[in-house]
Order: sequence, then structure tokens, then C-alpha cells
Amino acid sequence: MVAFSPLLDKLIAELSKLPGVGKKTAQRLAFHLLERPEEEALELATAIREARLGTSFCSECCNLSDTDPCPICSDFKRDRKSICVLESARDLNAIERSSAYHGLYHVLHGVISPLKNIGPEEIKLPELIQRLQEQPEVEELILALNPSPEGEATGLYIARLLAPAGLKITRLASGLPAGGELDFVDELTLSQAIEGRREI
Amino acid sequence: MVAFSPLLDKLIAELSKLPGVGKKTAQRLAFHLLERPEEEALELATAIREARLGTSFCSECCNLSDTDPCPICSDFKRDRKSICVLESARDLNAIERSSAYHGLYHVLHGVISPLKNIGPEEIKLPELIQRLQEQPEVEELILALNPSPEGEATGLYIARLLAPAGLKITRLASGLPAGGELDFVDELTLSQAIEGRREI
Repeated sequence: MVAFSPLLDKLIAELSKLPGVGKKTAQRLAFHLLERPEEEALELATAIREARLGTSFCSECCNLSDTDPCPICSDFKRDRKSICVLESARDLNAIERSSAYHGLYHVLHGVISPLKNIGPEEIKLPELIQRLQEQPEVEELILALNPSPEGEATGLYIARLLAPAGLKITRLASGLPAGGELDFVDELTLSQAIEGRREI
Repeated sequence: MVAFSPLLDKLIAELSKLPGVGKKTAQRLAFHLLERPEEEALELATAIREARLGTSFCSECCNLSDTDPCPICSDFKRDRKSICVLESARDLNAIERSSAYHGLYHVLHGVISPLKNIGPEEIKLPELIQRLQEQPEVEELILALNPSPEGEATGLYIARLLAPAGLKITRLASGLPAGGELDFVDELTLSQAIEGRREI
């Protein structure tokens, strides 16, 4: 590997830390930033700095926001009787896009993963428990975690932990994705779809 | 599309301007930057700013560098009789990695492309012509442009333009890539390899 200039090397190293960005992509991005007009690169640098320093976790739902409480928690038109529990702030956007849910959220910022040394205290689960104690109006907890082994395990853990609280605890349905073809659906999804079949 | 916070929206918009980064990837990168430790995001912002403000084109070869002249132009062990003409600073790294060339470079920062409204004056071609006048010791010009239609056309243009100067003008060989299989090589490459066949 030939060394570029020290400043360029540093930029490539920093860009390589981004998810899905390897050495080669980092080089391409770095050269792009240096070859394009100066404002473009500086605006990106400023946007990163301002977004990082200006946003923090909402003290209620732990969503990323530049106001506290976040726009969703402070929107009194939303149904305050249900909380949808998510793995990441990105998932919140996916649910909002579907327009099928009008309650509140709670972002865990991770899932329990013994292999990665992430226990219940490392995610925003203590915050959820405290919140349920402070907001007795909550009636339903919807676990919308990713259908991965860790997501499933975290969901079960939360369900067992909160069972004594007398809440209704639900999870998203598993089954066929809309517009998919039976032939292309994997065996696990198909067996879940059969198991969860509903009368018409 | 649900709006995130204004600062996050701005960050996503800036990241989307990077090459190969779409809306979805920009969101993933933005959330990564906001969820990881603060130093990581701020270091990237600083690296972008410093690299952009600290590097400029070498006044001789137009390569990106934080010194002027760049380390290659100021290295007196290099063969000053040949100049390798490149499309971008990234290509310079590729040639250096091969260790097969020890002369100087000239980075055009683009190729002539009438469709994109890029003429000979929009790339660093006037600088090359001026440089050849100031450096009469140059004997060979190696055109190492990408084997794309624009690259080929730019090479031909430069070759015709500089023909009266009495320089030796060469271009990189076309043919089979090392380690490739004949069966997977496209027709054009194969026909160029046959045309350029050499006696053993």
C-alpha cells in the first residue's frame, strides 16, 4: 500500500470505520471529498459535528432527537396506552412509514447478546421498566424486535420480566411478506406462516 | 418519508451526496455516527475538514498533496524523462502499487466528455502542455487513461495535440488480465489481446 499524504491517510482511516465501508470504498469517498468543491466537504463535516453534538436520547423513549422530549413523546394526539419496543431508532422510522401505529415508542439501542457481552443493563431496558412504573396508563407493550435469534431472545426476556406487571405484551406477526412469492420464501418463514394461519 | 430531527435530516442529505451512497445507506451511516461514541463522529468531521483544507493540487503534476511540490515531484531519484498521464489521483496509487513505473505523473482530474460538457480546458490539460514546454527533458508521455470510450478519446486527442512536439507517446497495453480465464474475458478484450499478440 502506497502512502498518500498524511491528511488523506487519516481521512481514509476515519471513513473506513463506517459500517459497510472498506478500504477501497473509503479511498473512493476520500478522493471524492477532496476533488469536489470545498463547500461540499466542509458542509458534510459541519453536518456530522452538529448532528452529533445537537442530538441526544429523548429522556422518555430514548429515541434520537434534538428536542427533549422528542416530537413523538410530546405529541398529545398519540395513543399513550401502548409502547412499541424497538431495537434501534432506524426501526422507528420503518414503523412510522407504515402509518399502522399511533402509540409511543421505546428504543432499546441494542438487543441482549451474551456472545457480544451485552446484558439487559447495557441496553435501554432499565429505562423501559422505570418508564412503565411512572406511566401506569400504558396497557400494551408491542415487541417489534428484529426476527433474529438475539431479537427473539430479548423479546422473550422482556416478556418474562414484565409478566407480573399485568400488561398485555404482544409481538409483531411472522408470516409471508406482502408481494412475495411462496416459492421464494424460506422454510422457517413458511412454517411460521402456517402455524399462525388465520380464518378468513 | 417520515422526517427525523432537522439535524439528522441535514446529515442524511449531506451523506447522500457521496458517490455510491443512496438514501438508505446515508440513513444507516447517519444513525451509526449518532449512536457510536462522540469522539468517533467528531474525529471523522475533523479529518474531512483538515484533509479538505490542508491538501491542494501539486503545482507540477496536479496530484493531491499536502506539500507543494508533492513527494513524487520532489523525489530526485525518480526518472524525470517520462510523464505518466492519469485520469485521477486514485489511479496514481494503483500504478505506484505495481512498482513498475519510476517516472513522474500528471493527473488530469477528468477526461474530455462532450456529453458532460467537459472540454480540454476543464481538465488539467493546459497545465500538462505548459509543463512540457518548461521541462524539455521529458522524452516520453505514457497515457494511462481508463479503457472507457471517454478515456480512449481523450488519449487520442492528447496524442494528436502533442504529435508536433516530437515526444514519444505511448499508451498502456490492452489484453488479458493476469490470472483471468479466457472463457470469462469479454470479446473486445480478447480481440485486443489477439491484435496485440507478441512473439515469444
